[in-house]
Amino acid sequence: MKKISESTVRRLSLYLRFLQEAADRGADTISSEELARRGGTTSAQVRKDLSFFGSFGKRGMGYSVPELLHALRDILGLTRTWRVALVGAGKIGSALFSYRDFQRRGFNIRAVFDSDRAKVGAAWGDLRVRHDEELDRALAEDGIEIVIIAVPAEAAQGVVDRVVQGGVRAILNFAPTRLKVPAGVALRNVDMTVELEGLAYTIVNGIPPT
Amino acid sequence: MKKISESTVRRLSLYLRFLQEAADRGADTISSEELARRGGTTSAQVRKDLSFFGSFGKRGMGYSVPELLHALRDILGLTRTWRVALVGAGKIGSALFSYRDFQRRGFNIRAVFDSDRAKVGAAWGDLRVRHDEELDRALAEDGIEIVIIAVPAEAAQGVVDRVVQGGVRAILNFAPTRLKVPAGVALRNVDMTVELEGLAYTIVNGIPPT
Repeated sequence: MKKISESTVRRLSLYLRFLQEAADRGADTISSEELARRGGTTSAQVRKDLSFFGSFGKRGMGYSVPELLHALRDILGLTRTWRVALVGAGKIGSALFSYRDFQRRGFNIRAVFDSDRAKVGAAWGDLRVRHDEELDRALAEDGIEIVIIAVPAEAAQGVVDRVVQGGVRAILNFAPTRLKVPAGVALRNVDMTVELEGLAYTIVNGIPPT
Repeated sequence: MKKISESTVRRLSLYLRFLQEAADRGADTISSEELARRGGTTSAQVRKDLSFFGSFGKRGMGYSVPELLHALRDILGLTRTWRVALVGAGKIGSALFSYRDFQRRGFNIRAVFDSDRAKVGAAWGDLRVRHDEELDRALAEDGIEIVIIAVPAEAAQGVVDRVVQGGVRAILNFAPTRLKVPAGVALRNVDMTVELEGLAYTIVNGIPPT
């Protein structure tokens, strides 16, 4: 198995989204040029990205939408559902919980935790917010595979340590801090302030970063 | 002025955060090793990133925390406040509106818009949600510099086109779609589902992407 870069995997996610849009409007085929345009890349890059995973499409014919859709869903591990826990029942946690795109892609939030007893017991959809004392036991009982961290920065590392200890290998972090995880645990950060600061930099310096 | 990559600018944001933490605990100096460790990079990379902007620190002495803090705030354009508008008063918009980190870094949301008349007029802090018909006029009147898009995917491009037409040069997009902007307009995407899909890929393939 080749090592695939994080940016390649990100582009595959975008190609998948465009393929779904194409399928929704009844398109049978899609060209690498169209995928490239939507993904903000070149058609050579599209062909290279896809070539890691097999031989798709015919020269001059484009890609079969249903075929490539299926292949990408398979490659990205989206032909199944994922058991997700959310730690942090604040504003960000609440927005993520009701984010339709997660559910649509098979990421099912099965448990929500908070350390604030005032929030514990609140009904969120079919769930109740649980105290984060229950986190360790719940991870195993619910077979949680991915944990989303939406707690304040100062609490985040403690939560991550417990989650890793509990056997979880994939973490999506929304807390505005860098977290340490051991090798073999995948961590992604969504850092909204960093993105805004990048925009501020661009305005001040007048040059869009490459 | 050299062209600085987007990933360099992202690292500068992270260094800034660690410097603020160091300042909060009363540290006078910080080493490139410490900045590297917190930023998930190497001390050589830290020195290279900072060298684009001048000469900081003394060999063997580390960096002066207040000096580098000031320099990074200056480089990133954070010695001033920014006039921000938010389009989309749904769950994500609401979470972003009350996200303390934005305000703390000088990103002031001055106006909130939605196309849903049921939401228009609702009090959000000191503001009232405005109908997005008012968007074009308000951008100029309020001197908006950065727009945050938190509308559904299918509405996002239309909003962006109006915002660009209204003279805004910096856009932070939370809608799960790729947007087109003309040259000279900076666009950042925060794509939460893409990050989750990256984690799913990692679990399925057992190799953390590089």
